[in-house]
Amino acid sequence: MLPFLDQFGDPGRLHAEGRATRVALENAREQVAEFFGARPREVVFTSCGTEAVNAAHFGTRGHVVTSAVEHSSVRDALARAPVEVTVVGVDRLGRVDPGAVLAAVRPETTLVSIQLANHEVGTVQPVAEIRAGLDGARLHVDACAAVGHMPVRFDADLCSVTAHKFGGPLGAGALLVRRGLRIPPLLLGGAQERARRGGIENLPAWIGFGAACAAIDVEREARAQYALIERAAEVLDRVPGVARYGDDSPNVLCLGVEGVEAEPILLALDQHGVAVHSGSSCSSETLEPSPVLAAMGVDADHSLRVSVGWSTTEADVDRFVDVFPGIVERLRGLR
Amino acid sequence: MLPFLDQFGDPGRLHAEGRATRVALENAREQVAEFFGARPREVVFTSCGTEAVNAAHFGTRGHVVTSAVEHSSVRDALARAPVEVTVVGVDRLGRVDPGAVLAAVRPETTLVSIQLANHEVGTVQPVAEIRAGLDGARLHVDACAAVGHMPVRFDADLCSVTAHKFGGPLGAGALLVRRGLRIPPLLLGGAQERARRGGIENLPAWIGFGAACAAIDVEREARAQYALIERAAEVLDRVPGVARYGDDSPNVLCLGVEGVEAEPILLALDQHGVAVHSGSSCSSETLEPSPVLAAMGVDADHSLRVSVGWSTTEADVDRFVDVFPGIVERLRGLR
Repeated sequence: MLPFLDQFGDPGRLHAEGRATRVALENAREQVAEFFGARPREVVFTSCGTEAVNAAHFGTRGHVVTSAVEHSSVRDALARAPVEVTVVGVDRLGRVDPGAVLAAVRPETTLVSIQLANHEVGTVQPVAEIRAGLDGARLHVDACAAVGHMPVRFDADLCSVTAHKFGGPLGAGALLVRRGLRIPPLLLGGAQERARRGGIENLPAWIGFGAACAAIDVEREARAQYALIERAAEVLDRVPGVARYGDDSPNVLCLGVEGVEAEPILLALDQHGVAVHSGSSCSSETLEPSPVLAAMGVDADHSLRVSVGWSTTEADVDRFVDVFPGIVERLRGLR
Repeated sequence: MLPFLDQFGDPGRLHAEGRATRVALENAREQVAEFFGARPREVVFTSCGTEAVNAAHFGTRGHVVTSAVEHSSVRDALARAPVEVTVVGVDRLGRVDPGAVLAAVRPETTLVSIQLANHEVGTVQPVAEIRAGLDGARLHVDACAAVGHMPVRFDADLCSVTAHKFGGPLGAGALLVRRGLRIPPLLLGGAQERARRGGIENLPAWIGFGAACAAIDVEREARAQYALIERAAEVLDRVPGVARYGDDSPNVLCLGVEGVEAEPILLALDQHGVAVHSGSSCSSETLEPSPVLAAMGVDADHSLRVSVGWSTTEADVDRFVDVFPGIVERLRGLR
């Protein structure tokens, strides 16, 4: 992607610069398509996963079925659409029952929107079972929290993905759109992306997205990250009064720590060079209770989210496991 | 911007990485604000100018006044909005009459949307006069084609700008939003950009945008580019049957060449290393007639667009002036 940071021609142009960048862009599109098991023409590049999710829901009408633990981009996009929404609850692990989702589908249902992995507790949803039982309504899979942590195959009508979670650059996402499906563009004003997303193409970012797709061995990453997160989960045995929220996650350890708020733990870990999150992915460190935990029936407003990715090392995880017990003990002693 | 390509923390986070990127992002926001004479809080970063324009028009209701030569992002965004649109015509130079714009405003007018400089012929619109006469309706100025070619001061309610036209990176635009004005976000799903644009921040691009704003001496650029475009305009004296469309442009020479299509000229110039455009900026090399030329009453479907920017040299322009007459002569001889 680096050469395209300061030398680029508009890929919509006929001149030599334009043709060269068109080739690089289409090569990236093929790399992204290959990674997700899609056709190149099914890849619509976007500026981020959130834009992809917004585009996936834009213009939807009728009745929509979704889960109670979706990312705020899905919730908010549906809240403003002229649709009736049925929200299907989840169990204590944050998992939606595919039978309940399918039972909520009606003849007038136009869209079922379910995430692949949860952004906060990491629970993987039974998307394939929902897909298999659907007949008529479109399926949108928000795979933004799953990409790079587990294999993601495009087997839906719409799928939102992002690049920066697995070594790709910021500024790159994609909406995968099943061949033959037409949806109204969210961004109007040009024929870019086969008239599905107006605006000048972000060449370096999208070319970097392709390169990341070509570079990652996602099966190996998934195994390595799972091993790391299970290693991080050792703190559950070492520290009393710590609960793990969510199901068997590919890359997230979501913790509730009895008697201590998440924020002081986060700040103390930070002083030890360990960066963890409170709240959910993508909402700033908000003080609102987590809708994901509420939907799971967990009696906790906040959680500590420890996540691993392509750049996480065993040493990173060991440091967390080493310092976490002492931090919790000290903070509990301050009460 | 380079360090933020591979090392970044989420600026919405409390940990050290997050705080460091927050500082860099807010520094960039100050640089962009300073460049356009805006307050930092008035800057909402976007992925491109087209996104900014779409966001500026999103959710508009009532009656809107616009010109007949707007970029397709404005035209298309208004066409899908639940609004009544009055389109004010332009003269043969592509210039809108400010009196005609103001006369079209009614009590129920919510928005007046006028570009600063035209994307195809370069004509600069009398935005300040429109601004001065407006009372009640909001003014959106699409400054995307003007930025970097002439000074752009934020003196409107909304203003769309982009970075890549003056040395900034791809992936960066901004919607300037007057203090106190609230508009519904186009992208939902996070509290980024003070809840005005959801989605992970494109740190390298937006930091690069700030750096470009800080680096450019726009007054000097404007003088230099104007001199270059006037130099390019010498072909009008050298080649018979060539017309210039549009008014005194800061950076565009839009030509109609009698008896020859734009595309073969473009391809021949390309062989000499001179990249010019046919059609308008941002629509691919479309075969549809130009709505801008049609609005100007020019009897030409297509034009050749020679534009200069921060990276154009005198040698580039000299090469164009040298080879253009021979190319036109040769192509005319082929008829």
